[in-house]
Amino acid sequence: VNLIILTEADSVGGNRYRLTDSRAEHIRTVLRLQIGDSAQIGLVNGPVGEARIEQLDDTEVVLICGEFQKLPDPLPTVDLICALPRPQTLRKVLITSAMMGVRNLHLVRANRVEKSYFHSPLLAPAKWTPYLIEGLGQGKLTRLPEVQIHERFRSFFEDTFPALERGEKLPSVRLLPHPEATKAIHGVYDGRSQRLVVAIGPEGGWVPFETELMESVGFKPFRLGPWVLRVEHAVTAVLAQIELARMLPL
Amino acid sequence: VNLIILTEADSVGGNRYRLTDSRAEHIRTVLRLQIGDSAQIGLVNGPVGEARIEQLDDTEVVLICGEFQKLPDPLPTVDLICALPRPQTLRKVLITSAMMGVRNLHLVRANRVEKSYFHSPLLAPAKWTPYLIEGLGQGKLTRLPEVQIHERFRSFFEDTFPALERGEKLPSVRLLPHPEATKAIHGVYDGRSQRLVVAIGPEGGWVPFETELMESVGFKPFRLGPWVLRVEHAVTAVLAQIELARMLPL
Repeated sequence: VNLIILTEADSVGGNRYRLTDSRAEHIRTVLRLQIGDSAQIGLVNGPVGEARIEQLDDTEVVLICGEFQKLPDPLPTVDLICALPRPQTLRKVLITSAMMGVRNLHLVRANRVEKSYFHSPLLAPAKWTPYLIEGLGQGKLTRLPEVQIHERFRSFFEDTFPALERGEKLPSVRLLPHPEATKAIHGVYDGRSQRLVVAIGPEGGWVPFETELMESVGFKPFRLGPWVLRVEHAVTAVLAQIELARMLPL
Repeated sequence: VNLIILTEADSVGGNRYRLTDSRAEHIRTVLRLQIGDSAQIGLVNGPVGEARIEQLDDTEVVLICGEFQKLPDPLPTVDLICALPRPQTLRKVLITSAMMGVRNLHLVRANRVEKSYFHSPLLAPAKWTPYLIEGLGQGKLTRLPEVQIHERFRSFFEDTFPALERGEKLPSVRLLPHPEATKAIHGVYDGRSQRLVVAIGPEGGWVPFETELMESVGFKPFRLGPWVLRVEHAVTAVLAQIELARMLPL
């Protein structure tokens, strides 16, 4: 972890924050900090800064935050739509999304998503937030991704998604990595738009009905590469290619 | 898993292969195949094809292979040099390397690599091969990456690496993702060379002496993106950007 992420729930008044969970454990056993040492911290959805360890024992760590610094320039806005993966993959997708600056994560049903996945205990904010916090700490970011669950594929793409888009100030480029596409990402995204939406399919892929519906609401298929990737690798690979597309000369 | 990878050790004569490990378990419980069903298989460092389940019970699965198909076009040759990560990360790097077609994986010492990592039981072919096999099966590839361990950073880059390069037919483009670099990958790789070597640093990064030595043997720093990534994500992100650089117009 490169940044210790603090939330409002950790605040004990003034500039003091009290940690009792895996972050306290991390400070003790991985960073091996002691009373008086400094640590890099970030406030959820807020600035980053430095804190001093005021108290540290087996049960808790108390930090006093000093001055906060200006945040780095924001990343481009990328929203991720992901066919709900099985819980062990979802944990990785949550960490990666936060680490790489995803703004909204929409978890949707799809034909090849097992129904049981929607009953996972992980699908509750109190359960998924620690994975997001872990990802933010790794990526040195503080904006917590918003996670939403959509139990119906069709109504998400026909109703919810268009309504969300109407509420946005910037138009979006909508990307659909697809093994049968022929164009690479620079053929469908010129690197200029600062708002993107990417849809990642389930293990085994989307079925034709699904890709047709997504294309009808503006998603553009592109070829990510020659590989067959796991969902969590596809997320990283797409975000890496978006970043390169942004750096290409126009 | 998209392909069941068979090795010589599994052969029981003729076209028959007998599995008793996690692959047999996968066939029974995930693919839920039965006697007479077909499965997609690949021979390590060989062709892919179809096999029929001849026998299946709690202890073993016996497959009879039919005709083999021509292999898809080979991926470009990418060799990965990776500062030896801790074992739980190394497992992910092994899977990802095989899944995304890495040819050679060189695990090297670096200043920020803990010495204890070199004593991991994972650093033996019998221990690391199952992770490579898992990655090949996911990626639908059959060429097993070669793994080598190098306990000395300096002698690797000053002696071993130049000697390996002299034995190659094609010249290589040598890439060094670095947070302080300003050029993106297309500024140091024009997408034409079919042989690449990429060096991925440890958690916390290379120290200046290390990057200077690597640059002196031709490694070109480039900017992967604005994020602070874990090693396993950096591997995926670099391979994804190499692939996009290959697809760009010259």
